[in-house]
Amino acid sequence: MNLEPPVRPTLATAPHDSVVTSSPRDVPVDRATAAARRVIEALMRTDRRAANLDRVTAVLDTIADHLDQHAPPVADRLIDMWRGEGITRHDPATGVENPLAPPLVLTGRADGSVDGVVTLTIPYQGPPGHVHGGVAAQLLDHTLGVANMWAGRKGATAQLNVRYHRPTPLFEPLTVCGRLVSEDGAKINTVGDIRTADGTVCVSAQGLFIDQSAFARPR
Amino acid sequence: MNLEPPVRPTLATAPHDSVVTSSPRDVPVDRATAAARRVIEALMRTDRRAANLDRVTAVLDTIADHLDQHAPPVADRLIDMWRGEGITRHDPATGVENPLAPPLVLTGRADGSVDGVVTLTIPYQGPPGHVHGGVAAQLLDHTLGVANMWAGRKGATAQLNVRYHRPTPLFEPLTVCGRLVSEDGAKINTVGDIRTADGTVCVSAQGLFIDQSAFARPR
Repeated sequence: MNLEPPVRPTLATAPHDSVVTSSPRDVPVDRATAAARRVIEALMRTDRRAANLDRVTAVLDTIADHLDQHAPPVADRLIDMWRGEGITRHDPATGVENPLAPPLVLTGRADGSVDGVVTLTIPYQGPPGHVHGGVAAQLLDHTLGVANMWAGRKGATAQLNVRYHRPTPLFEPLTVCGRLVSEDGAKINTVGDIRTADGTVCVSAQGLFIDQSAFARPR
Repeated sequence: MNLEPPVRPTLATAPHDSVVTSSPRDVPVDRATAAARRVIEALMRTDRRAANLDRVTAVLDTIADHLDQHAPPVADRLIDMWRGEGITRHDPATGVENPLAPPLVLTGRADGSVDGVVTLTIPYQGPPGHVHGGVAAQLLDHTLGVANMWAGRKGATAQLNVRYHRPTPLFEPLTVCGRLVSEDGAKINTVGDIRTADGTVCVSAQGLFIDQSAFARPR
């Protein structure tokens, strides 16, 4: 695919406290995605016997058929979804157009860090009443990548090391943060964590990223 | 919550090549969840201008309202969803009742490993045309936990170290595998990876798990 690199806000170019992911907008696709999230949550919560799930299935299939009829070939859609700020609208962590994303909204800070608050519910459950460890890893992986962007770097994840300090609760606000801590040529070292509202760290992560462009151009 | 521990198949108690997660069944909730996955996928693929997304939003909200009306209190539902084989039906990796899960179906092998094949599509995208690094971490985290179960152990994740060897492709079958490699009292060391059909390793993981029950009972 021939994709134009999107313009991303960085600490050097954008005002402090800029939202560095995409914010939900009052547009049809964002409203439809929010409604799809409601269905996911409600489907997991509903009584398996009382709700008329065969009727629900029929209506959902009708909607999927309708949307499929208006879908371009996958290759075309992939190009379109990466245009402009598309990069931040479709991923499964912060993507406001992705029903799988909570979505997490991240803000770039003057000190070089990024952070956002998210409350996770039943679809993200691992142990009873707590966040799935893999979901925590996923949110941190993405947040570390956004922290790199905010610092003006971009790299592919080479290693992600996640430490689980205590179970991460569902149903309460969690702060997810990330920060680029050091650079050595193409190697970028970034850390982050997930905390409860009282500041208790539940999960922390350290990532090594490789800036591919460092190999492609003279430095 | 007072939850009965579910009975899980293990290498010692179950036939080889047993499915150790849940398989989709021909029951209303599994069909409804599959239809919700179709909506998620189609919503991300559809043309944002051509599809009547305001109408789609209205219908999805009506379904969510209906399901909410038949939903028990969250605390009751949490207890119900962890009964019996519920543990494997609701998580965001293998849960056939969770629209966020692909779902991955894992089989326990005679050599002590577990593995499953999954094809990931647009909702799981990170880099263009490739799997989100956090999604790979999430699937591996879960698979390592299931590998522990198959080996007859159960532990909370303490550390998860993920290595990204090459980009993981969307739209083609990937094999996700895991295996408990060593135990030292309460410490359980488990590894796994994600490979393409030709055996190329894209992502590998090593996890340290702590068996909490080792502290609660004499060994």
